[in-house]
Amino acid sequence: MVEPDQLRLLSKIELPQDLRKLNISDLKNVCQELREFIIDELSENPGHFASSLGVIELTVALHYVFNTPLDRIVWDVGHQAYAHKILTGRKDRFSTNRKMGGISGFPSPSESEYDSFTAGHASNSISAALGMAMASSIKNEADKRHVVAVIGDAAISGGLAFEGLNNASSHPNNLLIILNDNNMAIDKNVGGLNQYLVNITTSKQYNKIRYDLYQTFKKANIISEEMKGAILRFNNSLKSLITRQHNIFEGLDIRYFGPVDGHDVESLVRIIDKIKDMNGPKLLHICTKKGKGYAPAEKHATIWHAPGKFNKETGERLAKADTDSPELFQEVFGKTLVELADMNEKIVGITPAMPTGCSMNNMMEKYPERSFDVGIAEEHAVTFSGGLAAEGMIPFCNIYSSFMQRAYDQVIHDVAIQKLPVVFCLDRAGLVGEDGPTHHGVFDIAYFRAIPGAIVSAPLNEHWLRNLMYTAQKRADAPFLIRYPRGKGYLKDWKNEFKEIEIGKGYCIKEGTDVAVLSFGAIGNEAFEAIEKAEQKGLSVAHYDMVFAKPIDEELLHSVMSKFDKIITIEDGILKGGFGSAIIEFMVDNGYNCKVRRLGLPDNFVEHGTVSQLRNICGIDSAAVYDSLIKEW
Amino acid sequence: MVEPDQLRLLSKIELPQDLRKLNISDLKNVCQELREFIIDELSENPGHFASSLGVIELTVALHYVFNTPLDRIVWDVGHQAYAHKILTGRKDRFSTNRKMGGISGFPSPSESEYDSFTAGHASNSISAALGMAMASSIKNEADKRHVVAVIGDAAISGGLAFEGLNNASSHPNNLLIILNDNNMAIDKNVGGLNQYLVNITTSKQYNKIRYDLYQTFKKANIISEEMKGAILRFNNSLKSLITRQHNIFEGLDIRYFGPVDGHDVESLVRIIDKIKDMNGPKLLHICTKKGKGYAPAEKHATIWHAPGKFNKETGERLAKADTDSPELFQEVFGKTLVELADMNEKIVGITPAMPTGCSMNNMMEKYPERSFDVGIAEEHAVTFSGGLAAEGMIPFCNIYSSFMQRAYDQVIHDVAIQKLPVVFCLDRAGLVGEDGPTHHGVFDIAYFRAIPGAIVSAPLNEHWLRNLMYTAQKRADAPFLIRYPRGKGYLKDWKNEFKEIEIGKGYCIKEGTDVAVLSFGAIGNEAFEAIEKAEQKGLSVAHYDMVFAKPIDEELLHSVMSKFDKIITIEDGILKGGFGSAIIEFMVDNGYNCKVRRLGLPDNFVEHGTVSQLRNICGIDSAAVYDSLIKEW
Repeated sequence: MVEPDQLRLLSKIELPQDLRKLNISDLKNVCQELREFIIDELSENPGHFASSLGVIELTVALHYVFNTPLDRIVWDVGHQAYAHKILTGRKDRFSTNRKMGGISGFPSPSESEYDSFTAGHASNSISAALGMAMASSIKNEADKRHVVAVIGDAAISGGLAFEGLNNASSHPNNLLIILNDNNMAIDKNVGGLNQYLVNITTSKQYNKIRYDLYQTFKKANIISEEMKGAILRFNNSLKSLITRQHNIFEGLDIRYFGPVDGHDVESLVRIIDKIKDMNGPKLLHICTKKGKGYAPAEKHATIWHAPGKFNKETGERLAKADTDSPELFQEVFGKTLVELADMNEKIVGITPAMPTGCSMNNMMEKYPERSFDVGIAEEHAVTFSGGLAAEGMIPFCNIYSSFMQRAYDQVIHDVAIQKLPVVFCLDRAGLVGEDGPTHHGVFDIAYFRAIPGAIVSAPLNEHWLRNLMYTAQKRADAPFLIRYPRGKGYLKDWKNEFKEIEIGKGYCIKEGTDVAVLSFGAIGNEAFEAIEKAEQKGLSVAHYDMVFAKPIDEELLHSVMSKFDKIITIEDGILKGGFGSAIIEFMVDNGYNCKVRRLGLPDNFVEHGTVSQLRNICGIDSAAVYDSLIKEW
Repeated sequence: MVEPDQLRLLSKIELPQDLRKLNISDLKNVCQELREFIIDELSENPGHFASSLGVIELTVALHYVFNTPLDRIVWDVGHQAYAHKILTGRKDRFSTNRKMGGISGFPSPSESEYDSFTAGHASNSISAALGMAMASSIKNEADKRHVVAVIGDAAISGGLAFEGLNNASSHPNNLLIILNDNNMAIDKNVGGLNQYLVNITTSKQYNKIRYDLYQTFKKANIISEEMKGAILRFNNSLKSLITRQHNIFEGLDIRYFGPVDGHDVESLVRIIDKIKDMNGPKLLHICTKKGKGYAPAEKHATIWHAPGKFNKETGERLAKADTDSPELFQEVFGKTLVELADMNEKIVGITPAMPTGCSMNNMMEKYPERSFDVGIAEEHAVTFSGGLAAEGMIPFCNIYSSFMQRAYDQVIHDVAIQKLPVVFCLDRAGLVGEDGPTHHGVFDIAYFRAIPGAIVSAPLNEHWLRNLMYTAQKRADAPFLIRYPRGKGYLKDWKNEFKEIEIGKGYCIKEGTDVAVLSFGAIGNEAFEAIEKAEQKGLSVAHYDMVFAKPIDEELLHSVMSKFDKIITIEDGILKGGFGSAIIEFMVDNGYNCKVRRLGLPDNFVEHGTVSQLRNICGIDSAAVYDSLIKEW
């Protein structure tokens, strides 16, 4: 560990007001100490790494210039905010980062007054900050309070961010947007806007030519007084000419500054100080490097996005390649998709900025022309998939469950109404663990079950995942959802031969006579041990894997409800409107009268912790199934 | 009516192939005839008016140049597509427009092969068309098929459209985007992008100066060969300089052409023909006038967006100001909001482009600094409201129920997690009638009920709407939803004195002993007559208005379920996961065993028709309640 006496400056900083007492010349050293502290902590306590290293200078500059927490900093996505947390009273608790009961890995207003808005899902910072700025202005406090949104070049490609930019100039406000441009999402960034930022930044001719050109303009005397103002903005306009590009932000009436070096803390302080009180919305474009200051991370920023434990001296990542245990569901998805694409040339793959996370990179490698990473743009991902399907393709659109909330309307409007055969693979469905409440994928069963015609399925294990994927690409008249959890599967030998599944059919895993357990998806594995244990107590328990929450297997339910008067349902999702509700809707509609215990997530946001800790708290683990089985009915 | 012999050309056009046989010089007359036909039809059969008149020349030009239906035209929003429908085999059925069993008011792939994608919700055309273009390219059919997206200047401000634009240049394709710029949404358009389009279009200096300036550049000899290409794009770059603006589309690597007159059909044909085979994505910016060719509509485009029946000679609108019948729920909302804003200075109003439709224009007039029309940007509307609420404001964010699907994630992530007091007024909740499946607001109960902490309410009538709004602004720790239908209320004297309601409390409208009817919202009015009729048959029926679907009134339900073994629930929303599900979830969780008949919408998309026709078909009208009451249990 870094010894406290090595942190000469940082040890004196409890809150930003302590930082602001330092000389500007000390800030470089503060950054250095912060960097060491973060590298040291993260090597032991895994978390988001490369992003936070990239914004250390920016973080220090912002808290140095602005009067936080009165001034508001809104972090976009927020996993880059570790330095911010360390500087705002959470240094001593930083080793609890992402652990149960510890501090959150994202800014969280319930944790600190310095965290001014929820972060986690990309692209919300500009809209939220604009709302805060307008509130200050309505309360006549605009001159007392600055509001700053910090957004990355990947997050700014999201539609919500554009809507925020488009509205920024509509009402008088002093919003400052910092565009943190590292030319990366978690994976490499994509899209026209990204290319634009690269062009604007790398124009070699720009510095050489701008002065000459301006002089020529003047000499040529073709410039009226009225036009001079426009021409004088040569930092942008001429740069546009030369880069063959155009300043998008100025086009939206947002004053543009930059690009500047985001790792020169003193110069950042001076620039931000100079522009912060200018009237009207403004954007400062800074260039940073993900992983800055830690060589292995600078080199491989995607791997070092969240590297797990590592040896900080050697850069060796300590997660063992565990050849004995099952693969990740993600790996199985990625490899299976390639197998299917080999067989069916209509299959195309779509991911909004998560090719590595969801393993679509496998398909991108083998079939680049049939794979689309569309950037942080879930809505587009779905509507684009709809367009592909309308022309006969079979898109596998992989979106993390919690991000799919972004594209709910598109699934309804652009896919389901037309009965288009888009396969939605909902990765990280259910409780995801350390990423906490913004990332748990727990609403999807409820909100998809409402969509007419949608097929909502979940695999018990890797074989079922593969069979569902195989079945989905054969089926061509409806959106087909397959939700599966984050993390390891359950089988050592996952690569079964494909088998087509009958849509809407569940099956009996185990017969029994006293109680029936109906499970949906991989959470069903929690029931196995519980049932075994309960049977040792003399109970006879049947277990059915329903596979589909919609259409529900009515034949099977008739049989179960005729036979059993005690039923337990279990799902890795919110109870209100979820899988268990589907079961009791059927029961009531058909006049059955069983006692039903529904296990699933309660009506509150679930905090962060390990998946097994959270399942325990929420009552959806093996212990909870056991309790439900044996307690008095 | 227009006599067939007056439609000299149009009467010969059944399909676009007939249009393509004409000389280009005939097209102006085709447009004239189309215009007369539409004015004539719409004066008798109400529909969307001004938008369709604005794109007649464009529609004729597109079908003249392109080989539809092999070439694809994707209309955005789609209520401007009447000329398209008339030219593509639906002229004879056009008088059935928007009527039950007749043609849809929007393009609909299930209706015609010329309608290549669902339209209704704004901003989806670019993403869908890009998907279609990429599919053609994967199938090696790109040279055989053109894909055109037609999007308005209001729809292009939606985040989804930006995501589409941002991805347009990522892969090789020949997408043509037509930007139909009439400087209008339904109401006046807003936002930076809109201002940008105005600037680019109205630059008076542009034409005068561009030639001189280019010559000067050349003479000055400061332009390298490499730079010449950039400079030569003076149509855009110099225009940018002069308008003090920058071409956003070129910034996104989309070739930009325009602006051109969208009412000169011959010139449109020539331009589109010239650019259609250029490689890469391109955008043609055309300027049109809403209501073009019909003077009253040109003058007041918002009123003539959907004017109802009118006298085509005088321009008099024939909808009577019916002073005897109740006001619209919309009017009550709009006026009540102003009353509340008078009393509570923390209240702010937010609408995404629907100030007239939802009646927030009342507040915009009285409190312009506290009212925000953010344009077509539902996601931003919600997150912006979250930002306002985080700083102590109480935002009333009014979004049509079906458009709220666009902002589901923002409600969860940017409001609910932080327990912010945003009041979501869901206008046009339930079946909306003639606008059909894209516009029915029928999923909201199900998808909002899943959100932890959300309060989900619906008023029986105008008094309850007012009391709920009054209560919501006093309550400061959760998103508070109030859903109410499109159209007339039920009370003549709607302006009651405000009364605070206890959150999560229902009440008994009418006592009874045999059956209990539990209703949620204004659909409860359908039960009154049914109950009266059933009681005449000797049945004793109790009626409870639950007011809240969440939190549900548990005390009341305990009492009802102890007393009744027959319960009917009724809701104006989808059954799966909706209000009735909330009732049976409570019942099963608490071990009651009542027979429950749930009335609500079935698991399919509901077509267009009048609200009462559709309620009848879906079994949620008075007749259905009566049937449920009297049929054998």
